[in-house]
Amino acid sequence: MSNTPLTQMHLSVTCNDRRCIPERFFNIQPGEVVVHRNAGGNVRHALRDIIILDEVLGLKEIAIVHHTDCGTLRFRDEDIRKTDSRYWPEIDAMHIGAIADVDRSVGDDLEWLGKTPFVRKDLIEKTRGFIFDVKTGLVSPVV
Amino acid sequence: MSNTPLTQMHLSVTCNDRRCIPERFFNIQPGEVVVHRNAGGNVRHALRDIIILDEVLGLKEIAIVHHTDCGTLRFRDEDIRKTDSRYWPEIDAMHIGAIADVDRSVGDDLEWLGKTPFVRKDLIEKTRGFIFDVKTGLVSPVV
Repeated sequence: MSNTPLTQMHLSVTCNDRRCIPERFFNIQPGEVVVHRNAGGNVRHALRDIIILDEVLGLKEIAIVHHTDCGTLRFRDEDIRKTDSRYWPEIDAMHIGAIADVDRSVGDDLEWLGKTPFVRKDLIEKTRGFIFDVKTGLVSPVV
Repeated sequence: MSNTPLTQMHLSVTCNDRRCIPERFFNIQPGEVVVHRNAGGNVRHALRDIIILDEVLGLKEIAIVHHTDCGTLRFRDEDIRKTDSRYWPEIDAMHIGAIADVDRSVGDDLEWLGKTPFVRKDLIEKTRGFIFDVKTGLVSPVV
């Protein structure tokens, strides 16, 4: 594992899913990528990290990678309310982010990122969307 | 890479840093761990995922892993304001989460998680803190 200082680099935003390992599906060495992983790979929840990483490291590009057979396809936001109902409003405000279609969710994320004032325009232009197919192991760009 | 359905499992919460790959530092197979990665491995920002993953998969345990030489040691929250100053209040509200001491930050995260009403008490009891030393490659528990 590389132990060199952090430099400018690529950020992959992808899912918690145990199969979503950017170092594997992009076939890159561990030292070459910084990674944000959240449920679904939802870019809204990566915004804090994009801001921090771009400030501290200077990001070259971002890849948003959602995947087939994602757990976020299997519920609706309002299902995620295991706790006491008095906490439901706070949970609902978290943007749980269930998705209905993986192609569309990547496009939605690119569109959302394109509108945020918190990210440099030239970094937004260097952001691409992908779908990782867990059956084939292949990553395809979303046009 | 495993392509079996998701089951109950371990969640690692760790950093974006390119050296923070739980599958490596815990020496486990890719199919055995779901992973949340954010800047610093701050558990507050993993809360949405803990709620979703526990609902969808049922989590067995959580490991919060911060690391030496972390980028979040190199700034203060108020440094992260690259954009137009009219957006600073929104950025300040994001809990950027600069840290001053890695041992303390893991303890703070365990304490914070212990107080949230959004996570099952028995899952909180199965949550442990660790520090990953990027020089030695070793992960040590925080007591």
